Amino acid sequence: MVEKRTPIPVEEAVQKVMESEIVPKTKWVSIEKAYGRYLAEDVKADHDVPPFDKSPYDGFALKAENTKQATREHPVTFEVVGEIGAGSVFEGEVEDFQAVRIMTGAKIPDGCDCVIMLELTKEKRKNNQVYMEITRSLKKGDNISLQGEDTKKGNSLVKKGTFINPGVSALLATFGYSDVPVAKKPVIGLLATGSELLDVSEPLEPGKIRNSNAYMVLAQIEKAGGEAKYFGKFSDDFEDCLEAVENALSEVDILITTGGVSVGDYDYVPKILEKLGASVLFNKIGMRPGSVTTVARLGNKLYYGLSGNPSACYVGFELFVRPVIQKSLFHPRPHLRKTKAVLGADFPKPNPFTRFVRAKLEEHNGRYTVIPSGLDKSGVVTSLADASAFIVLAGGTRGYEKGMEVDVLLLEDWIGSEWPWNNIVPSYR
Amino acid sequence: MVEKRTPIPVEEAVQKVMESEIVPKTKWVSIEKAYGRYLAEDVKADHDVPPFDKSPYDGFALKAENTKQATREHPVTFEVVGEIGAGSVFEGEVEDFQAVRIMTGAKIPDGCDCVIMLELTKEKRKNNQVYMEITRSLKKGDNISLQGEDTKKGNSLVKKGTFINPGVSALLATFGYSDVPVAKKPVIGLLATGSELLDVSEPLEPGKIRNSNAYMVLAQIEKAGGEAKYFGKFSDDFEDCLEAVENALSEVDILITTGGVSVGDYDYVPKILEKLGASVLFNKIGMRPGSVTTVARLGNKLYYGLSGNPSACYVGFELFVRPVIQKSLFHPRPHLRKTKAVLGADFPKPNPFTRFVRAKLEEHNGRYTVIPSGLDKSGVVTSLADASAFIVLAGGTRGYEKGMEVDVLLLEDWIGSEWPWNNIVPSYR
Repeated sequence: MVEKRTPIPVEEAVQKVMESEIVPKTKWVSIEKAYGRYLAEDVKADHDVPPFDKSPYDGFALKAENTKQATREHPVTFEVVGEIGAGSVFEGEVEDFQAVRIMTGAKIPDGCDCVIMLELTKEKRKNNQVYMEITRSLKKGDNISLQGEDTKKGNSLVKKGTFINPGVSALLATFGYSDVPVAKKPVIGLLATGSELLDVSEPLEPGKIRNSNAYMVLAQIEKAGGEAKYFGKFSDDFEDCLEAVENALSEVDILITTGGVSVGDYDYVPKILEKLGASVLFNKIGMRPGSVTTVARLGNKLYYGLSGNPSACYVGFELFVRPVIQKSLFHPRPHLRKTKAVLGADFPKPNPFTRFVRAKLEEHNGRYTVIPSGLDKSGVVTSLADASAFIVLAGGTRGYEKGMEVDVLLLEDWIGSEWPWNNIVPSYR
Repeated sequence: MVEKRTPIPVEEAVQKVMESEIVPKTKWVSIEKAYGRYLAEDVKADHDVPPFDKSPYDGFALKAENTKQATREHPVTFEVVGEIGAGSVFEGEVEDFQAVRIMTGAKIPDGCDCVIMLELTKEKRKNNQVYMEITRSLKKGDNISLQGEDTKKGNSLVKKGTFINPGVSALLATFGYSDVPVAKKPVIGLLATGSELLDVSEPLEPGKIRNSNAYMVLAQIEKAGGEAKYFGKFSDDFEDCLEAVENALSEVDILITTGGVSVGDYDYVPKILEKLGASVLFNKIGMRPGSVTTVARLGNKLYYGLSGNPSACYVGFELFVRPVIQKSLFHPRPHLRKTKAVLGADFPKPNPFTRFVRAKLEEHNGRYTVIPSGLDKSGVVTSLADASAFIVLAGGTRGYEKGMEVDVLLLEDWIGSEWPWNNIVPSYR
């Protein structure tokens, strides 16, 4: 009646999952829609930056040589022979003791080799001709942004796999990417199991609860960078379930079910996997919560059976689904980032297995504190909303006390981690 | 020719801007679309959690009293009178020395007051009747999750203004929010100015550069939670520009122009504001970069003239536009969060005014380091992509050295800050 399962260590489970690649694909989107996607190629400079010698200030362009004698007592006068706004180009060559009025960003006229700021000059008019006087000397190159000084044409500026933030958008625009190669979002399907589940719009009934895991996981998929597809709820009939899984698999890269992975009698998942000829990577992990997480491979697709328990489901997703999604987005650091924090409250439970405790991360003056969520019963519900980290407690340890330093995995983070987690092995088993 | 402007301190500028509220509006979206939005109301429990006494394990429900005598040597036998899956309810009352096979999550049958885990029992069959044997005693309430132990009906669980993350989605589902009240995204229009600007799809021309600020700001708007609307580029004709601004204003809550706020000759913005009867809140701030940021009020709308310089434009947006957007999303902490970090490189420039240096934030073992971006020329371009913080250097200070502790404002952060920034006043002027 009770199926025997052999737990594998967390690290081994992560490794097994990461070996099952979801092949990344590239998609082109217009730059306006690129924010929040991941680059599918390195961004390269298609021109020097700046693309020409330009003025960083409003002022006058002239020859430095002509300013040698200029002092407060003996100003030097220049004939103003033109005026160029940003985007205009001065035609012709500037001669000795001539100057061109130049705006911020405009190209330095031929013959000029420095710029003096407007504020340091004095305008004069004589016979309808404008003159300009300066009282200090300049050096060649003063106040000129040189062509290519920021970057050279062909330079690789941002790597494939980079999250497109506002700064990356600016770079893409600068280098002419009106369309941007981004990683196609992998499609992640979700099927809820559990005859106790009501849909969110249904009124409560005795013995039943509303299906909250589904909407949690749909949001986790989106947050991780995937495209979520909800296939609704398993029926109570085995053949219907089998068909639902087969249909869903045909439309997705990864299929997740929540619930139905326990050792209860009504769990169809193991039977369905057997029937579909799936190769089960593992069906038990030496961790709490989420020990009954199942992962199987079906051809080039992955199946995840996450626990029906909300915390276990959440943890299972972040540890085993998220990095596969992020990897298919070319992200070079697809795993949750691990760091250290000071425990802000006692955690008295012993840890027979590696434990992932959902926790609220706080940071003051560059120091992290974590407070385990849901230590008291009333926290169980809202801990779902508050959690911004997992505290990682090694298996075989007793309770932890306030003030101790612990490992944490960050849930709200833009950096990520490579594998294996830094120095996780010694403290992790 | 040169307009005189009086700079105001950064804090005063922020305060002036925050007094000009964009009235928040509520919109209902289906729970599947709620991820990433902001709650427009507190989320309340519409029922107790758990909604009934339930079993946290697979096992048998029975009366604790009947187990008193059970030991390894003298097992006690129970008649198994039924079996309930999660979601089913046992009809009838359980009598002495009867037990009901119960699945995780199922409601405790009437008459039972504890649950024994499946693993601790032994099944027996006699004359087609199933029996179950146990070898230890249980106490009333053992392995029962009590109705309301997680939360009581009516409790306010998550506050208005909360970002809807996967955990909040789970809460919303649990409490029947098939539609979710979220803050309507304020519409933020963008008009680029500058005759030197080419569109991203145009080939480079002498004297011109591609318009990168526009796409950067569009992404910043989206990141801050607004809805971006791009109105393209100003023409060189004053009347056309005036009309473009008037038209744009009619469709947005906030209008931003980039460029054209300097003291150059070709800047139409001050004239347009005058013509429209705008009340200018300020047009110069004692800060670098971004000193020539202009903000004006036109009825219940705000106009921002951000600098054409990318760094100045970026900083101006994050300090003055972002909090207004976040406030209109009900966010209780709409400002960038301020904290401390260790400077990872020398910053030799003196700071005549408060300086906001775009920087790369790194964190190791719970300690922040910041490295200023673009200190060397080649960094200017990619610093756009790398920046995850501003280093805040007080005006009137000289250069800073590697290893010194500095104030930073976080750009990739999910917490935010109230106003005024914690302890910002002493270090900030």
